[in-house]
Amino acid sequence: MEAVIAEIITIGDEILYGQIVDTNSAWMGMELTKIGIKVKQITSVSDSAAHIIEALDNAKTRADIMLITGGLGPTKDDLTKNILTAYFNTELKLHEPSLEDVKAIFSRRGIEVSELNRQQAFLPAACTPVRNILGTAPGMWFEEEGKIFVSMPGVPFEMKRMMTDIVLPKLQEHFKTPQIIHKVVQTAGVPESTLADTIEQWELTLPPHIRLAYLPHLGGVRLRLTGQGDNEEALEKELQQQVDILSQIIPDYIFAYGEVKLEEAVGQLLKTQKLTIATAESCTGGLLAHKFTSVPGSSAYYIGSVIAYHNHVKTEQLGVKPDTLAQYGAVSEDTVRQMAEGIRMKFNTDIGVATSGIAGPDGGTPDKPVGTIWIAYADKDKTVTKLLSYNKDRILNIEYTTIAVLNLMRQSLLATVEE
Amino acid sequence: MEAVIAEIITIGDEILYGQIVDTNSAWMGMELTKIGIKVKQITSVSDSAAHIIEALDNAKTRADIMLITGGLGPTKDDLTKNILTAYFNTELKLHEPSLEDVKAIFSRRGIEVSELNRQQAFLPAACTPVRNILGTAPGMWFEEEGKIFVSMPGVPFEMKRMMTDIVLPKLQEHFKTPQIIHKVVQTAGVPESTLADTIEQWELTLPPHIRLAYLPHLGGVRLRLTGQGDNEEALEKELQQQVDILSQIIPDYIFAYGEVKLEEAVGQLLKTQKLTIATAESCTGGLLAHKFTSVPGSSAYYIGSVIAYHNHVKTEQLGVKPDTLAQYGAVSEDTVRQMAEGIRMKFNTDIGVATSGIAGPDGGTPDKPVGTIWIAYADKDKTVTKLLSYNKDRILNIEYTTIAVLNLMRQSLLATVEE
Repeated sequence: MEAVIAEIITIGDEILYGQIVDTNSAWMGMELTKIGIKVKQITSVSDSAAHIIEALDNAKTRADIMLITGGLGPTKDDLTKNILTAYFNTELKLHEPSLEDVKAIFSRRGIEVSELNRQQAFLPAACTPVRNILGTAPGMWFEEEGKIFVSMPGVPFEMKRMMTDIVLPKLQEHFKTPQIIHKVVQTAGVPESTLADTIEQWELTLPPHIRLAYLPHLGGVRLRLTGQGDNEEALEKELQQQVDILSQIIPDYIFAYGEVKLEEAVGQLLKTQKLTIATAESCTGGLLAHKFTSVPGSSAYYIGSVIAYHNHVKTEQLGVKPDTLAQYGAVSEDTVRQMAEGIRMKFNTDIGVATSGIAGPDGGTPDKPVGTIWIAYADKDKTVTKLLSYNKDRILNIEYTTIAVLNLMRQSLLATVEE
Repeated sequence: MEAVIAEIITIGDEILYGQIVDTNSAWMGMELTKIGIKVKQITSVSDSAAHIIEALDNAKTRADIMLITGGLGPTKDDLTKNILTAYFNTELKLHEPSLEDVKAIFSRRGIEVSELNRQQAFLPAACTPVRNILGTAPGMWFEEEGKIFVSMPGVPFEMKRMMTDIVLPKLQEHFKTPQIIHKVVQTAGVPESTLADTIEQWELTLPPHIRLAYLPHLGGVRLRLTGQGDNEEALEKELQQQVDILSQIIPDYIFAYGEVKLEEAVGQLLKTQKLTIATAESCTGGLLAHKFTSVPGSSAYYIGSVIAYHNHVKTEQLGVKPDTLAQYGAVSEDTVRQMAEGIRMKFNTDIGVATSGIAGPDGGTPDKPVGTIWIAYADKDKTVTKLLSYNKDRILNIEYTTIAVLNLMRQSLLATVEE
């Protein structure tokens, strides 16, 4: 079966000038993908009639569906409706139900309907209006030579409601879309290239209707398998088999399946093993604590932290020996070990982790350049330390360190189970 | 003078499928606008050679500059380099300096350079390589018939560094862009609509060659004045005069001029007044500490923190009275006051600040719904508390609270000076 192709056209100088980030398109792409419609292109164009028409002309040579957002507000820089009226060679006509909707919204706000807003109920005669229950600009659905054109407001919550309630179901009804299933495998602690080398042989065995994508991000590499087929159950089974094979090739790199963050996966391990944790942070300055506590329900295992930015906090609050600081410095294996063990004792938790390093941009020495960072994990049986060496900027050195700590925890917690 | 036109082409199915939001384009649009280059279109295309070539062909009919991101990683779904090599009718050649860069990155990580990564140093002979000091995929700069094509990795921090260090200056040098000066005024603690009402009369007096943009973000509203002219000195003077007038209209809302974050402005106040600070966080769980310590040089005033996620940490480490917790609960004015005063005493700092609240999604009660948050500021003379009430999600409740604390600090520190 041939894929149904969609293109998204977003209108607005504010997107091109970077004043707003176009999150609408990503959301639409995700929802269309879920129902088996393939998004081929996203085009953001300026508030110019000629440019919008050019984008429409180009899009319909490639796609079956054109989804247009933006340019439907009541102010004069909003052009879309007039352009589409001319494009489909039709005329504006009062659409009574839309006028009722506009009136209802204004009466709820206790305001009179302005002339500008009244005009929003005038719609191209050739379109099927798409109701907007959250705002004053209705959407428009056009069909021409087997192609679908839908125009929607750029306000995210209005567009999303319109898509969910009306546009997506109508598209599913109109096109017979193929079955598409995605499986996401989350990896951490392995560079993309090493990962690619390791799984290359397996990847070569994948059938043509299953594709693999590498999606690297700050915390690791997401692997996404996308399968297409006619039978949902068979496809689901086939994809799961491939995920199972992959799991046997790289068991140590995988921390979760699906849309799960590393801090959530580690939190889940702590929860399952009924363990509590406290953190002692120097160079990460609270980001590690923030990662833990950004997970809903983290108070079940996360007890607290001492952020020991100054050395006197390390000695007084965490029990780091002044001799250690004097002899080896704050950025040393001995210090970070004492910090992890110290916070564990002080906060009476099962696990303590610690960071101490030089995030930069200042503070580096020839012996310990910027990016030299020690991390430690301590539980009742052992303390594990690790030396990191980054050459990123301050924020990234901090970010990468928190990920390394989470990964060290994950490995240590799994090793404990296996022993 | 005719405007120089750029188009941005982002490559990757992951954007079209909505698996990642394209934040790169917005950032690039903003930076290009700043140097007087007009972005006309942003096009996101699939991982397909034919489609990428079509996008390039179309873009060069409209624009002078084509900026391409994505598809430069070491794995085989990355196509851009090979496509550009064919597109410009050239061939791949080993670029020794790039190989040295790749080797240096791997040697710092203590890993051997894989064959895949070695191949990243093979670049089209017709391009000028653009150095990537943060990753293994160099950028490529092509010139053909007066048009510029630049290909960069899709990893945001690599692309940004490349743009800032090399691509933007080179574009400014290559095109004679009009004189453009920006002045940014940072405000906090005031909603956009109130701000707009307050400065409306002034805005109407601005001459046509000076434009005002509202750039709202999580921490407040940035106001950006953009002036265009022939004489740099006169333009600079004229813009500064407008900023001075604005400062007199909204003195209390402005926390800084230029690209300064609220935590940097507060850090600067602490530095100037030679004061130290420690934080005691419950609901913000380390984000406040992270904000402080993300500022380079913050160790001059930031001493440390106790993150008291569990109540026993509040009593044992911060000296919150068990009676207070029993009678008023952890989320109460008395608790947060004792936390701020407690951390100040314990860490022996000039100032202590504290947060305690219900970030959600669970933990709310009819009396104290999710989003109920107390914050406190304590110095040697006084303790100031404030009740916040948000109805956002967990992450936003935490983010907004840290901003409210920073703003409370700013107001308290300025009031101290004025007394």
